[in-house]
This record gives sequence, structure tokens and C-alpha cells, in this order.
Amino acid sequence: MEKREQLYEGKAKKVYATDDPNLVIVDYKDDATAGNGAKKGTIRGKGVVNNKVTNSLMRMLEKEGVPTHFVEELSDRETLVKKVSIVPLEVIVRNVAAGSFTARLGVKEGTRFDQPTLEYSFKDDDLGDPLINHYHALALKAATVEEMKTIDTYAFQVNEVLKNYLRQYNIDLIDFKLEFGRLSDGTIVLADEISPDTCRFWDATTGAHLDKDLFRRDLGGEVEAYQEVMKRLLGE
Amino acid sequence: MEKREQLYEGKAKKVYATDDPNLVIVDYKDDATAGNGAKKGTIRGKGVVNNKVTNSLMRMLEKEGVPTHFVEELSDRETLVKKVSIVPLEVIVRNVAAGSFTARLGVKEGTRFDQPTLEYSFKDDDLGDPLINHYHALALKAATVEEMKTIDTYAFQVNEVLKNYLRQYNIDLIDFKLEFGRLSDGTIVLADEISPDTCRFWDATTGAHLDKDLFRRDLGGEVEAYQEVMKRLLGE
Repeated sequence: MEKREQLYEGKAKKVYATDDPNLVIVDYKDDATAGNGAKKGTIRGKGVVNNKVTNSLMRMLEKEGVPTHFVEELSDRETLVKKVSIVPLEVIVRNVAAGSFTARLGVKEGTRFDQPTLEYSFKDDDLGDPLINHYHALALKAATVEEMKTIDTYAFQVNEVLKNYLRQYNIDLIDFKLEFGRLSDGTIVLADEISPDTCRFWDATTGAHLDKDLFRRDLGGEVEAYQEVMKRLLGE
Repeated sequence: MEKREQLYEGKAKKVYATDDPNLVIVDYKDDATAGNGAKKGTIRGKGVVNNKVTNSLMRMLEKEGVPTHFVEELSDRETLVKKVSIVPLEVIVRNVAAGSFTARLGVKEGTRFDQPTLEYSFKDDDLGDPLINHYHALALKAATVEEMKTIDTYAFQVNEVLKNYLRQYNIDLIDFKLEFGRLSDGTIVLADEISPDTCRFWDATTGAHLDKDLFRRDLGGEVEAYQEVMKRLLGE
């Protein structure tokens, strides 16, 4: 597999072409942003953690029946994935109130919901990734009704599988953001990453943050927390 | 029917008890607010228009199978209605992009959707009536799944009936906000008002605003526009 020209550089990852038009290489950076890019910094070693944790979780989810873009881990920071066209929706599932949800809706952080919630943000940096609902997504032509049904089913399935999986590592899955992509034939697969950047992980015993909130909220210890997640999940 | 003590004063209406515990009297004011109360003023004659227009439309909707709180018009500004416990959701249906939708989502005002959109705002002045979705409404215990199904069905039905009804008066129904209430036995009925305060009405020929946007946006002519709506619908 030959790594070719850079196709895209995002806040946390670069994407490169390969000699196969259906495959690309994702390269994870240590760069960290918060508040829609308002805060910028670095979390040392983050790229390695996010690459390895994402791949480990995607492999596990594939076995549980959730199709993903994952193909093969190439190095500490690089992974070969299927090329997709990203559905412009951030799909957020919440088991416990935290972050923006608490401020917007006047709910105390840590409030556990009877049932998980699911929401979409419209992926548009200029608009600040605004919260939308399914009718809006349709009006904005972000996805079809059928695609949203598939995405919602996968998102709730990921939640159930991941929540139970993480429990054995003494991690409480508070909430997370997923992105989905379309393969060239239109098939919807899970894409992007599943990492302490995109999930809220709380230590199930102490409630300590093991995620990007340490960086977002200037709490410190984010380098160690990311390493801790990798250690718990991968033993390294 | 005896008018007793005032139970509540809102931005645009007062509500009074009666000698029947299941009935209350709504009294429409000329007071106008915009931007969640940030802008305050008066639209002369508004209370009369909103009372009469609301009652006329609620009567029409009842005939079309949408249950409402309406009982009897008592005077120019007063109406007897069934006492309800308001479901804390503003239910907004949009046929054409306008107002907050356009700024939040980068859609040009006047863009007509292929299908109407429906959205909920959580009725909470302190929080600024934030946009929520159905999962959030459930988590916030604002309504049950069954109640939301009923509310959504009625809201889309109101849209179809009202859109067609207004067309004969050369009015284009752009969007509108509904509120629903629970009767003492839990039955969901349409409550609140349907007026130029709560709907965007555009003249179907010229596109001129016949609604509160004239006041919100300091365009002027709101007194005349409200009268014009009453004249078209009621011939007075």
C-alpha cells in the first residue's frame, strides 16, 4: 500500500490517498482543539492513543455487527481505512448529562437518563455545528430518511455494545460523538474515531475524567488520562 | 360564567379563574415582546385581533378534527377555554425558512422545504426556550412518547389544514408555533393561540409580512398588518 498525496487536514487528523482509490490512510496528530477551534493546544501522545484505541474499538464493533471503515493499522499513528464520503452529521449519544447539554437545558452534570438520548449536529464549522433534528437534516439534505434510520440504529447499538464493553475496564461511558460515511456504493459505515477526544469516559469508581474535558476545562492531567485509557483497553 | 381571580399573566395574555374549575378565561393584551422579552412594546389593537383570529381558526380546526381548548368567545378580548396543564414544548412547524432557522442553519430566508419541518423548543424563559429534539423532551420529562406522537400528528394536521385554508385569503403560511395542553383526564388538546404573534403570514402575492416580524425587525406597519389579517379572515 503506497501512501500518496495529502487529501485533507482536519483538527486532529490528516488523510492521505493511496494507490487504491477506495482506500485512504488516516494519520492521527497530537493537536487538540476545543470550543469549535477557539482553544488550541497539544496533548502529547494523543495521536497514538486515539489511533490505537479507535482501531481496537472498531474491530470490536465490527465483530458485534456494526460495519466500520477500518481496514488495517499501519503504524502507531497511521491506519488504512475505506474511503467514504462523510455524512455531515455529528451523531451524539448521551447516557448521562454532561457538557453543553447541561448548560443549554439546565440539567445537572452527572444526571443519568432513563434512556439514552440521540442528537444530530450539522457539521459546519462556520455555523458552529448547530444542533438540528431529523426534520432539519432532511431539509438541509444532509441525509435521507433511510440513512438516518440506519445511522440511528447503529448509534444506539454502538452505545449498548460500548457501554458494556467499557464496564469491564471500569470506565463509565457518559456520552460520545460518532460520524458515519457512505462507501462508493452508498453503504453507511461507522467512520472517524472513537477515542477520549470524541467520548466522555469517567472512571466508574471515582468519576474522574479520562477524556478531553481535562483539556477543554483546563483541569490538567490529560496526557496521563489518555495513556490510562490506552493502558486499560490495550494493556500498553 | 363568573370571572374570578387572575391565575397568571404572560407576555401577551392574562388568564382568570371562573366558577367552573375546568374552565378559565383568557384575556388578550396589546403588549408585544420579541427576542425572549428583550424588546418590549405595544401593538395597538393586537389583543382584539389575536383573540378573534385565534377563535376563528380554532373553530375551523375543531371541525377538521383537531381538538382544541376553545369553548366560547366572551368579548373582543376575552375567551372562555378549557383549563389545561400546558405541555412545556413550543411546537414549531416550518414550510419556508425564516427567522432563527435561517441564521442558525445558513439557509436563505424564503427557501421552501420539500416537506415541512417540525421542531420543539423547551418552554423555559431562563434558558431562552432552547431547541430540543424528541429524545431530549423525553429526558427532560416534558412529555411522554405517546403524547409526542399525538402532538406531532396534530401539528402536521394543523399545518395542512391551515395552509390550505389561508390560501383562499391570499396568505402564505411560512411557519408557526403551537402549544398543547393536557385536560384533567390527560387528553391532549391544542391550546394557546394561532395569530400573527405566533405565525409567519406572508401576503401570497407580494410576500409582505402580515405578522410580528414587522415589530421584531422594526419594519413598522404592524398595527395595520394585524388589522389586515383580521379583515381578510373575518371580514371585519
